[in-house]
Amino acid sequence: MKAVILLSGGLDSSTVLYQALVDGFECHTISFDYQQRHRRELQSALAIAQKAGVVDHQVVRFDLRQWGGSALTDDAIDLPHKRDPEEMSQSIPVTYVPARNTIFLSFALAYAETIVAQRIYIGVNALDYSGYPDCRPDYIQAMQEVFRLGTKQGRSGQPISIVTPLIHLKKTEIIQLGNKLEVPWELTWSCYAGGDVACGICDSCRLRLAAFADLGLKDPLAYAQ
Amino acid sequence: MKAVILLSGGLDSSTVLYQALVDGFECHTISFDYQQRHRRELQSALAIAQKAGVVDHQVVRFDLRQWGGSALTDDAIDLPHKRDPEEMSQSIPVTYVPARNTIFLSFALAYAETIVAQRIYIGVNALDYSGYPDCRPDYIQAMQEVFRLGTKQGRSGQPISIVTPLIHLKKTEIIQLGNKLEVPWELTWSCYAGGDVACGICDSCRLRLAAFADLGLKDPLAYAQ
Repeated sequence: MKAVILLSGGLDSSTVLYQALVDGFECHTISFDYQQRHRRELQSALAIAQKAGVVDHQVVRFDLRQWGGSALTDDAIDLPHKRDPEEMSQSIPVTYVPARNTIFLSFALAYAETIVAQRIYIGVNALDYSGYPDCRPDYIQAMQEVFRLGTKQGRSGQPISIVTPLIHLKKTEIIQLGNKLEVPWELTWSCYAGGDVACGICDSCRLRLAAFADLGLKDPLAYAQ
Repeated sequence: MKAVILLSGGLDSSTVLYQALVDGFECHTISFDYQQRHRRELQSALAIAQKAGVVDHQVVRFDLRQWGGSALTDDAIDLPHKRDPEEMSQSIPVTYVPARNTIFLSFALAYAETIVAQRIYIGVNALDYSGYPDCRPDYIQAMQEVFRLGTKQGRSGQPISIVTPLIHLKKTEIIQLGNKLEVPWELTWSCYAGGDVACGICDSCRLRLAAFADLGLKDPLAYAQ
């Protein structure tokens, strides 16, 4: 049985990959180079895919800077780094990239149907990033319906399933799960800032650092601050 | 009011562009260079966009040959050119590209949300290509739900609408509509074969030529055969 895993190189998707391995799937990972500010994450995705021993690792390339619309794809929009956690979970942040997960899942679907995979794993999380419309359960359900109706496999009664192991977990719970699965945190990458060392102050770094601290653990990644 | 129009350069999408103009929208076209066998269509798309005087024409580039899976993205799979029309409308042909319309609509959605467009026009057709799962009304309805739930605009109660003016038309009816709208057929491109002149024998050429012939009209495009 084959699964396609969306692997950004971050904490969440790396944990999901290790979950898919434990679930017994032959794992095929897919990463996206969309000219994101933090393309550094692609190196981490590759390193994790290799460490995990996946069967295949695909990198899909396209350019979302051609129209921008997000702090991650337009250098003129500043990255947020002082939003309080409650605000982060309620409003849609400037790091929201229009239709990003829809694009990612569409490519994953194309790849999965081509290799005749049964599942697509994605590390969306409705708690810490509930501001993102495309991380919520009702959205995933809608994409599942697209998977059922928009493909040959789906029309023949065998739709590819979207699996979201982290959707209802807090960041601390994700780290606990990842520890159990022995995810190599030192290889992961969460920082949005685009440097060679994680900045430690962007929202993504802060969320990660706070979760490790809440658990009384040390994040093994090096930080600039 | 802005609209994004998926423009392949073929008969159908060109007719849809001219319909969107008549509907009064500021038109933004989007084409896809996915390393398709018939990349020649991109020249036609650009020529039609210019002729129609669109506000902006985006070309999104990615490589669906990296996993293949279709006669349009894998040169080892032969193009069909002797299927009878009834078979074409019932089974899924080898020219089906896994998840293609889902990928196309996802990029169109990203672009539309970024420029704050109200509509996305797509020339899908459920009659002549009903073999394609991602050209049918129930699939489009499922994508509409993704548009509603997966975007900021949708969550704020103003989802981008998918408009499918051709979905229930026959090819002959599309040509009649295009004639009324004065679509420049001589600039369009339908051939799958990948040559510099339309082959005249692939399924796509045959369907087009038959429709013009049924109407007692001459297709102004030059054909090799």
